[in-house]
Parts: sequence; C-alpha cells; structure tokens
Amino acid sequence: MATSTLKSSLQELDRRYADIVDLHNANSILGWDQEVIMPPGGSELRAQTLATLAGVIHERTADTGLEKLVTKLHRRRADLTPRQRRAVELVRRRVRKASALPESLARDLALAESRGLEAWRTARERKQFKLFAPALRHMVDLKRQAAELLSDGGPLYDALLDDFEPGATTASVAPLLQQLKELTVPLVQKVVSSRNKVDLKPVKGRFDIEAQRGFGQAVAEAMGIDLGRGRMDLSTHPFCGGVAPGDVRMTSRYDVRDLRSGLYGVIHEAGHGLYEQGLDARRARGPLGGAISMAVHESQSRLWENMVARSRSFWKFWLPRLRRAHPQLKGVSVDAIWRACNEMRPSFIRVEADELTYNLHIILRFEIERDLIEGRIEVQQLPDRWNAGMQELLGVTPKNHSDGVMQDIHWAMGLFGYFPTYSMGNLYAAQFMEAARKRIRGLDGRIARGDLGALREWLRTEIHQHDQVYSAEALVKRVTGKPLGIDAFARHIRKRVDAIYG
Amino acid sequence: MATSTLKSSLQELDRRYADIVDLHNANSILGWDQEVIMPPGGSELRAQTLATLAGVIHERTADTGLEKLVTKLHRRRADLTPRQRRAVELVRRRVRKASALPESLARDLALAESRGLEAWRTARERKQFKLFAPALRHMVDLKRQAAELLSDGGPLYDALLDDFEPGATTASVAPLLQQLKELTVPLVQKVVSSRNKVDLKPVKGRFDIEAQRGFGQAVAEAMGIDLGRGRMDLSTHPFCGGVAPGDVRMTSRYDVRDLRSGLYGVIHEAGHGLYEQGLDARRARGPLGGAISMAVHESQSRLWENMVARSRSFWKFWLPRLRRAHPQLKGVSVDAIWRACNEMRPSFIRVEADELTYNLHIILRFEIERDLIEGRIEVQQLPDRWNAGMQELLGVTPKNHSDGVMQDIHWAMGLFGYFPTYSMGNLYAAQFMEAARKRIRGLDGRIARGDLGALREWLRTEIHQHDQVYSAEALVKRVTGKPLGIDAFARHIRKRVDAIYG
Repeated sequence: MATSTLKSSLQELDRRYADIVDLHNANSILGWDQEVIMPPGGSELRAQTLATLAGVIHERTADTGLEKLVTKLHRRRADLTPRQRRAVELVRRRVRKASALPESLARDLALAESRGLEAWRTARERKQFKLFAPALRHMVDLKRQAAELLSDGGPLYDALLDDFEPGATTASVAPLLQQLKELTVPLVQKVVSSRNKVDLKPVKGRFDIEAQRGFGQAVAEAMGIDLGRGRMDLSTHPFCGGVAPGDVRMTSRYDVRDLRSGLYGVIHEAGHGLYEQGLDARRARGPLGGAISMAVHESQSRLWENMVARSRSFWKFWLPRLRRAHPQLKGVSVDAIWRACNEMRPSFIRVEADELTYNLHIILRFEIERDLIEGRIEVQQLPDRWNAGMQELLGVTPKNHSDGVMQDIHWAMGLFGYFPTYSMGNLYAAQFMEAARKRIRGLDGRIARGDLGALREWLRTEIHQHDQVYSAEALVKRVTGKPLGIDAFARHIRKRVDAIYG
Repeated sequence: MATSTLKSSLQELDRRYADIVDLHNANSILGWDQEVIMPPGGSELRAQTLATLAGVIHERTADTGLEKLVTKLHRRRADLTPRQRRAVELVRRRVRKASALPESLARDLALAESRGLEAWRTARERKQFKLFAPALRHMVDLKRQAAELLSDGGPLYDALLDDFEPGATTASVAPLLQQLKELTVPLVQKVVSSRNKVDLKPVKGRFDIEAQRGFGQAVAEAMGIDLGRGRMDLSTHPFCGGVAPGDVRMTSRYDVRDLRSGLYGVIHEAGHGLYEQGLDARRARGPLGGAISMAVHESQSRLWENMVARSRSFWKFWLPRLRRAHPQLKGVSVDAIWRACNEMRPSFIRVEADELTYNLHIILRFEIERDLIEGRIEVQQLPDRWNAGMQELLGVTPKNHSDGVMQDIHWAMGLFGYFPTYSMGNLYAAQFMEAARKRIRGLDGRIARGDLGALREWLRTEIHQHDQVYSAEALVKRVTGKPLGIDAFARHIRKRVDAIYG
C-alpha cells in the first residue's frame, strides 16, 4: 500500500465511521425523546424504531468492507502517526465487538431495552418486583449471550464492563472497590456515632420550583454551560444526553421540600454537560471523537458536584444568590448551608446518597450484577440479596422494592457493567481535583469569588478537548502523574468527614 | 410460486417494509425535534444525521432484493386479494421512485433541506432574499435533477407533485385551480366593495397566552385529540408531525393581540392530528399504513377549521367558554364573534388568510413553483414575480420579502409540489362536509350543543381508519359519490360570503 493508498484508506475510514456516528446520534436523540418527551402511546413504535436503528448500526459496524479496511490499516500501523494509530484501534475495537454478535441479537437487545424500561416503570409504580422480573430475566439472558460471544475466555462480566470502561476488567476494578469498602465502612461508623449532628433546617421546607430552576441554571451557566449548544429540561430520572458538542441535553428534577436534590442534580449533570460541550467539534464525526469512558465522564460531574459545590468556598459566593431566590433563607450562614449540604448518613437511594456512603451503594450493585452475569444468582433472588446487602453494608432495609432493588433504571436498560464506573468516577474526580489545586493558583479563593472559569478552562485544556486521543489510563497519568487509585479520594473524604463530623 | 411461497413472499414484504417505516419514523421525530426542540448548536450534526438516515432509507427502499420481491408479487397479482394487491402496488411505487435516484442524490437532498432551513431562517430574520437565494438555487437544481430522473416524459413538475398527491398531475390539478381562481376573484371583489364591514373588536386586544393555550387545548380535546397519544407544543411555524397513531405531535403559536391566529391554528393542527390518531395501529408498520395523500390530510384540518369552527353553531357552544378564559369578552355576542372570525380581506400572509382569499395565495405559489421546476424562471426572479402576482391576484404588495416570497418554509425544505394540495384539501373538505351533513342527522345542532363526537366518529369510520387502503380518488367517490370538484366548495363559500358580506 503506497502512501496515497494509505491516505485514501484513512479517508474511507473517516467516511464510513462518520455514518456510524450519525446513526448513533439519531439513536441518542430518540432515546432522549423517549425518556423526556414522548407520550405513552408512542412506546411500541419507538421500541421498533430503536431496534431497527440498532440493526442498521450493527450492520454498518460489522460490515466486512469496514473490517477489511481496519485490518489493512492495522497491519500498516507502523506507518501511521500516533493519532491515526489510535483512531484505527478505536474503530477496530468497535468492529470486532459488533462482528462478534449477530444482527438479530443487536436488535433483540434494543427491543429488550425499550420493553425493560416500560416494565420497570410499571413495576416501580406498583412496587411489585414480580412485574419487572420477566423483562429483567430476558435482558439478563440476552446480555449473557452477548458476553459469551464477546468474551476472550475471562469472566463474562469483563465483556460488559469493557463497553463502558474500555480496558477495565473485574481484576482491575474489584480491588479498587474493595479498598474503597475498607476505607468507607469505618468512616460511616465514625459518622453514625459522632456527637456532631448536621442541622438540615437550611435545606428543608418549601422551596418554589421555578426559583430552584432559576438558581440551578445560574450555577450551570457560571460553570460554563452554553444553552445555545444545549438544553435543560425536567425528567423523573436526571441524565445528560443529546449530541456532543452542540446539542447537549441535561435533565433534572426538583423536590419542593428539599433544596439539595435539585441543586446537586443540576450541578452533577452540568458537569457531564461541560465535558460534552468541551469536546472538539472538528472531531465530532470522527473515530477519535467523543468521551473517553464512563468513569472519566463521571469524574467531571462528581468533581463539580462534590469537590466544588459542596465546598465552603462555593457557598461563600452562592449563598447570597440562593437567598435572593428563596427569601426564607435570610439569616442562614455560609457554615450552616455548607454543613447541611454535607450531611452524611446511610440511606436507601443511591442518587440521593452523600459522597461517603455513595460508594457502598455501588459496591452492592457491582457484586450483585457480577454474580448475575456470571450465573451465580438468579433474577428472582435479587430482592433478598439486595436487602441483605443493604443491611450488611449500610445497616438499613428499604421499605419496598421501588426504593430498593428497583430504584435504578440501569438493569432495566441492560446497562450491566456501568455501575462500577460511578465509583471510579469519584476516584478520578478527587485525583483530578488535587492536580487542579496544584496547577491553578488560589483555586479555592477563585471559587469563593464566584470565578469557576479557571477550573473549567483547566478541565477543558487537560481533559475535554482531547476527546478519545488518550485512553483513560494514559490521561490520568498525563494529568495527575499517577495511575488511578484511592489515595486522593481517601484524603478528600477523610478531611471532609473530619470537618463535618470530627 | 405456490400459495405457501406467495404467503412467505408477502411476509417478507411486510418485514422489509416495516424496517423502512421504522427509519421514516426516526426521521419524523428527528425532524420534529429539529424544528421544535433542538438548540441552534445542534444544526450541523443534525443535518449530517438526517442525510445519513436518508441514505439508509434510500438504500433499503431501492434494495434489489426488495425490487425483485415486488416484481415477483406484481406478476402474481391475479392471486392476491384486493388489499394485498394495493399493498404490493404501494411498495412497488416507492421502490420504483427510490431506484430512479442515486443514493448520493437522496443524501444531498436531505442535506440541502437542513441547510435550506437554516439559510431561510437567517434570511427571513434579516429580510434579505439574497441570503436565501444560493441555498434555494441549490435546492431547485437538486429537485430538477430528481424530477428528470423520475419523470416518465410528462412535465417535470408532475414527478414532484406525485410525492405529495399520488396520481395527481399538472393536467389534473391546473384546471381545478383555474376554476377556483374564476370562482374566487369576483367573490373577493364583492367582499372588498361590500358596505358590510366586519367588526374585529371581539378578537383584537390583549389575550393572555396561557388562557389561549388552555382554551385551544379544550377545543382540541373536545374534537377528540388524545394527549396520551400525542403532544401539543409551541413552535414558530405550526405543524403536525410525529408518528401515527400513538405519538402525534401538533404545534401552535399564539398572538397576544389577536385571538384568531392561535385558535384556528390549534384547530387546524388538531384536525390533522385526529386523522393521524385515527389511523389503524395494526397497520402502522405495514405497506397500507399511513395517510392517503397531503390533500386528504389537509381536508381534515380544513374541515374542522373552516367548516366547523367558523360556523355560528360552533360559537353557540364555545363562546361562553371563551369568555371564561378571557373575561374581557363579556358582552360579546355569538354573532359578533362569529363575524369577527369570518373576516375576509386580501392580505400578505397565507397562513393567516381567510378561507376565500387563501386559494389565491396557493394559485400564486403553484404557478411560480411550476415555472421554477420547468425551468421557465430563475430563482433571482422570484421576488419580482411574487410581488407582481400578489398585486394581480390580491391587489396588495408585501412591504418586505419576509412577508412576501420568503414567508413559507416549503421551498426552503424542497417541498415543491406541496402547495396545490392545500387548495385541493379545501375542496375535499367542503365535499366531505356536505356528505357528513347528509349522513349525520342534525349535525349543526350537535355542534351547537358542543357534541363534536358524531362528526369525528363519522370521519374516523369513513376516512381515517382506512389508512391507504383506498386511493384519494377512490375514497372521495366512496364517501361522497362524486370525484373531486369545486362545486361543494363553491356552494359553501358563496353562502358564507353572502352571510357575512351579502
């Protein structure tokens, strides 16, 4: 292959890959619509549309012409620049994964996602796990089939984990989570038995929803969210979707009786949104475009939510503004709101959990879903296993399955292997924030003056704008000088527990 | 081919066609989103996504396997039931049309639509035709290329018209429009020179937008719109989109100073929406599913808007309710609101035009777009041609091109051949309404008592539920006993002109 052939092969790769991205983008908007906009009557035809689209995406990705192209380019990798090599590897990975599955399975999985979502909604509403179990069992069967086809002989769970965290394995993730558990359990003991209590008066009461939305949007815009390139809507289950970097869609929900739920939800999703908006538009349809991994994504939401917006510095600037939105907060001090927003206690609901107990919720889900995929437990055992795990790790038992085993949307949509990335995101966030503090002079002072731009620009320069040019592993070393570990998070959380409960 | 092979061929036809419908449905939701929801930053990637999707739809429709299948089934048509025969013909028609065009042209057309929309928006905002002209010229070039490939030797315009009104030709449409012109021009003269003036006080003033929305939705729901199977949103250019029959999306806009614009917009789109919601869900992914034609579609919106909601009977029931929404209307009589809603006068804007002058707007557009496609005029001549035509037909000249030649979204999106269906819709509406009056005992009395259900059920039974089982030509004969003509409309409009201006 002469240089000119190499060049035209790379161009063909770009062209073919751009089509696949376009179809994924269609899928992404249709999925957002399904959750946020679509009337109930649309569900059956939408399920079919998403399944057909999944079939087309599969067909284009597993296409033998594309496969030959990446094989050819891979063989010539010595003649490629590092970025070209990385682009070829990323496409090759996708092609290999798609080729391992028959198109019918790709379609069945997409149908099972829509159906799972429906069944889960109904079952949650009626608080009956048995209404969810058949759809979940079907989903687990399909995911196990897929994992078997994808597996290279290692644990089945690895094949699924790799979809969300490329390169991660049970062997790399389980020890991190084990260390996190060992770190967390004694700290939770300390919190529970502390004589220092947190007064929740500043965040409990009746808070006008429109005023909450206005304040949340003001914080998001101060973080750098550009609403000309995105939207903020309401949905029951907050998430960040859409198409990067020009059409990034964040959703949130507000609780009229508790300020924390809406506010930290908005900031969390805005953290995701900033990452998406910070990706390089020139790469948007190319093989190197898009976020690196779910854990790196989560690090961006967690960094803003926990490291920034749960700091005392943050509240120095934002409390007066919050008081304007909610005049009943007149007289509340920075210390009081800061403490209230850092309450820690064992609870039932993951998304409402504080940053200390949160990881125990993840560990529980990781252990259960791994056993489910490895065939060590059955779907009907989930409720008991869940409640036992909650009792063991957090010392609480949910009152019903909607607040227990059915609280998350993930398993309904087949997202097995996703949960560990949440805790990994917490670890990345702490490690990135330590690096930011070293690199940005007077960061906390800036935050206290309402300047969130220095941190945002640093994150953009160091992380966002690189898309998938670096792997997660390479990126964290590049930015922090170290591989991912629990040390930075341990320092952060010990300090915070001491500050609030010490 | 044995009976079993015939059966399996028909099943394969259904299976393949269902995929194509799914992809059209994806396109439909993405198009709705593009107009109603998408932030400006999403436009470039959305344009690419819609182009790729158009390419995939083209590929699946022009697929040689599908082509062989319909050819085989067509040869065996004597062995098919009438419905099977119709199904095969409908797919065959689509396959033939797709196969005539290269995939690259299908993609280019989709790209040109998104780009045309963008250019049109900007040009309208700045009131400068020259900002729109290049995109429009490109679109006209592409449409002429397509028409040449599709043409069977007749006028190029016929090939485009047929996309919206299957079977219609310049030769069938032009005489109807000519008769309409001859009917309308003297009636407009009569209105203009009449000493009876319409007092607009009841509909002009300041009307709370939320109250307008509430009232509009109440009327739509009384018509039979089911919001569990649809949505009503705001958009600059009202339309009815989404996916039939479970996810039908109507949009509207409200004018705080004029009640008519919002109200008749909602009723118009709800008429379209009722048709879509009335289609048979069991056929939704099949070859016979969907609306017959744009003219029949328009007949459903026009029937509700003009025949029902501009009648005195309608206002007998709804005026007291409108007064509750807008207390300043206390003291307004049924006669006064009814007359105000039937004001007729030459004006600039088609979508705001009364039902008499409306058809002249269409005739102007038809004549211009036909000449454009046939190569008899160039894009740069449009503004002059437009203004001359407005002067000739309506005796008015728009103050700027945004209220003139650039007022409609259609040409920007390549919808050449669409306009005539609006006037044909008016003719169908009058003809259907005459039939309804004969078949539903005391229809006007029912409407005056707020009972819109009898009419809706009749429309559903006679028209909506049949999807594309009948052609437009067959349907109008079946329902009204006659082919489409201007007589019923002439009777209706003469009577109304007499009632208001006589």
